[in-house]
Amino acid sequence: MELNIPRIDRALNPETVAVIGDKGPGYTWLTNMQTFSGKVYSVQLDEKEIPGIEAMGITNYKSVMDIPEHVDYAVIAVPRRVSPFVFRDCVTKGVSGVGMFTSGFAESGSEEGVELQKEITQMAEDSGIVLLGPNCMGLYNPNLGVRFMVEQATGYSGDVSVISQSGGHAGGIAAMANSNGVKLNKVVSFGNGVVLENGDWLDYFAQDPTTRIIVMYIEGVRNGRSFLPKLKEATAKKPVIVWKGGQTPAGQRATSSHTGSLAESMNSWDAVIKQAGAIRCDDLEEVSDALKGLYFLPPFSGNRVGLAGGTGGQSVSMTDSFSKAGMEVPVLSNDSLDSLGEIMQVIGASYNNPIDIGAVNRDHFDEILEIWANDPHVDSLMMQFTPGMYRRSPEAAESQINSFINLKKVGKPLFAVLHSTDPYNDAESLNIIDNMLKEENIPSYQNYDRAANSILKIINYYRNKQ
Amino acid sequence: MELNIPRIDRALNPETVAVIGDKGPGYTWLTNMQTFSGKVYSVQLDEKEIPGIEAMGITNYKSVMDIPEHVDYAVIAVPRRVSPFVFRDCVTKGVSGVGMFTSGFAESGSEEGVELQKEITQMAEDSGIVLLGPNCMGLYNPNLGVRFMVEQATGYSGDVSVISQSGGHAGGIAAMANSNGVKLNKVVSFGNGVVLENGDWLDYFAQDPTTRIIVMYIEGVRNGRSFLPKLKEATAKKPVIVWKGGQTPAGQRATSSHTGSLAESMNSWDAVIKQAGAIRCDDLEEVSDALKGLYFLPPFSGNRVGLAGGTGGQSVSMTDSFSKAGMEVPVLSNDSLDSLGEIMQVIGASYNNPIDIGAVNRDHFDEILEIWANDPHVDSLMMQFTPGMYRRSPEAAESQINSFINLKKVGKPLFAVLHSTDPYNDAESLNIIDNMLKEENIPSYQNYDRAANSILKIINYYRNKQ
Repeated sequence: MELNIPRIDRALNPETVAVIGDKGPGYTWLTNMQTFSGKVYSVQLDEKEIPGIEAMGITNYKSVMDIPEHVDYAVIAVPRRVSPFVFRDCVTKGVSGVGMFTSGFAESGSEEGVELQKEITQMAEDSGIVLLGPNCMGLYNPNLGVRFMVEQATGYSGDVSVISQSGGHAGGIAAMANSNGVKLNKVVSFGNGVVLENGDWLDYFAQDPTTRIIVMYIEGVRNGRSFLPKLKEATAKKPVIVWKGGQTPAGQRATSSHTGSLAESMNSWDAVIKQAGAIRCDDLEEVSDALKGLYFLPPFSGNRVGLAGGTGGQSVSMTDSFSKAGMEVPVLSNDSLDSLGEIMQVIGASYNNPIDIGAVNRDHFDEILEIWANDPHVDSLMMQFTPGMYRRSPEAAESQINSFINLKKVGKPLFAVLHSTDPYNDAESLNIIDNMLKEENIPSYQNYDRAANSILKIINYYRNKQ
Repeated sequence: MELNIPRIDRALNPETVAVIGDKGPGYTWLTNMQTFSGKVYSVQLDEKEIPGIEAMGITNYKSVMDIPEHVDYAVIAVPRRVSPFVFRDCVTKGVSGVGMFTSGFAESGSEEGVELQKEITQMAEDSGIVLLGPNCMGLYNPNLGVRFMVEQATGYSGDVSVISQSGGHAGGIAAMANSNGVKLNKVVSFGNGVVLENGDWLDYFAQDPTTRIIVMYIEGVRNGRSFLPKLKEATAKKPVIVWKGGQTPAGQRATSSHTGSLAESMNSWDAVIKQAGAIRCDDLEEVSDALKGLYFLPPFSGNRVGLAGGTGGQSVSMTDSFSKAGMEVPVLSNDSLDSLGEIMQVIGASYNNPIDIGAVNRDHFDEILEIWANDPHVDSLMMQFTPGMYRRSPEAAESQINSFINLKKVGKPLFAVLHSTDPYNDAESLNIIDNMLKEENIPSYQNYDRAANSILKIINYYRNKQ
């Protein structure tokens, strides 16, 4: 459909928000909006609920029509039977956009739900109102403090936008991004997407000058044929990560009761993602890893990786992981090997790549790393750190992490693996190491496979662009 | 080779231990042995080191020959050039077994290293001494407090034995097992394995009545043809997890400088593992996950899984993961669906499997779980828990975890996924949930894929046995 860009802009960057139908004791949606930088109004008819709302310092009206100014974004959280009436009011009032949390429509499989969805769809189409939903979490705009979950960070502006049919996955991707230090622009959860759906949101964010990277969680597209050209066009402008949910017949049964999406063959999805040059991810962790790499690393397309920081068995494992993922783990150049041979004691260490810096060679740590990093055979550099090292000596560990950070001057992409055999109990040290690296825009991964697979996705994306 | 079982028994279950060549300031090996239940002696010639050793309350001798009783297990940690002399003394003394930490032999690629290794091999072969190594960490026996790393737990007896060419991976597998609540019997790291190698240790633990499960990390076997029958025979008796390091040409280059293992085609390894009916794992996490499941779950072979505990998008994802791994996610029986239909409000929940228990249905949590668990279409039960749930209300979360634990009465295998978008910061809650489950012998996994893949490995193992 033809997008009304200014209207979507206004809905997603609201100055006034109305929450319709929020209820105590928690007043979830009004609580979510406590960080909103603009004006929040409540719309609630139920006399029992109004005192609680007013106690929060929020003005309540009996109808959205009564709000004495323009409403840019409204959350509708009323029972499904009431939703058409409330939605009609929003249309009449000229509200820019609506996030309709209410569920129980076509995805419920009930006749009543299907009928109610038709009614809402018709109104939205006729009016051109920007409708997120129904059956969704709506909008998260960290810069303006518009949230759909109370844990969501606000007060910063970023350049990654997320399009998701699932509210849970929209929340999950956002939470992972926030904890990874990836700054978000907007997150839209749009559930059944009866008017604006995947292709529309993709078009919008592809043209949005404030969006540098797009992430999508898709359960189904209404117009399959038009989606490929849209994805191609978006990918030509900026990286698009695509996670398709419902990859198996049983998974598609689950999408149908989740957002009412129809089954589509995963083979054709494979082809679409590949042809468009988008970045395919198959679960939340893959999305998180690929996004982190895209966000922090400069564009690069060389797949020869330098590896360091493991003991013998770990050197074998990291080599297997990166090689199996499709990256090259080359032997260093003869010049490097000669220089390393002069510095390193051969016993208890190996240095042809991976570099396994035995304890006897710790005194030459910086020298060894610099030879390794400057080797002409390697395009990017991965170093492993362990929480055990940190626990035994924070000073020694920090000094080694800083030696790695110092390699930024070489100009090659740097990334890390934080290897732990007990991630729950090691969390404190892991967090410290992760934060040190994050502050320097160095992404870290939880194991070799996750690192290798996500880095290769990024390399392949930039190779396709060439 | 013909194994001298009583001699190996004695080496692995020592009453006296000698540490040869330990040095200050840390005295690593003597410190490791502080938990040993028997008698520890030190052997050290260097007058500068002796006062430190004696200050630890340990008697030092100039030669192993001088120790006034039989030595069951000796750690050799001297420079490589000295090692043949020290080793010869052990042979002469009639020491039962030696863990030779000293490295720099064939794996170094140097002529001197190759020669020294030959010398040691010859002595070991001629004498029949039980040699772990060289270039290894040796023995970890938690029951007797023999350790090769100071962090290793002791004072319990278990029934899982680990055979590893890599000391790092032996330590990693042991650490993961300990943190998962899996009780270990013995862990042997044997590095270059110049006499006793993979097949020998496999034979030993296959016949060992105190070992229920065997885990192997293999870099290379010296006699490829004899290994398959050994693995078949062991697998007929007990589950054997096999992790082959050096799966790629680059990875094999790394094994060669690690334990001097020769390159072998991964295709033939695939075939060997499959034909023998062993359980193939490709990294530390896969080993940890498969071991945890084998250890805690009863034998079972039905691959139809019941899933619960996610919201809509997560239900789609868990279904995709389990289906892609090769498990079946069946729709529940009509009887169950009818019963659930009477209890559950359809809006905001789905219950055909996965069961997505919407907030409106929390009052009927136990009833819903019991119908789901008793459904004749499902063979095993997976429930997801989140640290967010725990943070918001520990009581509510614990009550739900207990409801799941309560399903043990149904008699089907139970396992869990602990879903987190921020594992480092969620660690405290994750640990609490994990511990509650572990105490009830319910294994938990960090994500759907890891759960699905490891459970399927276990099912396939028991299917092969049928």
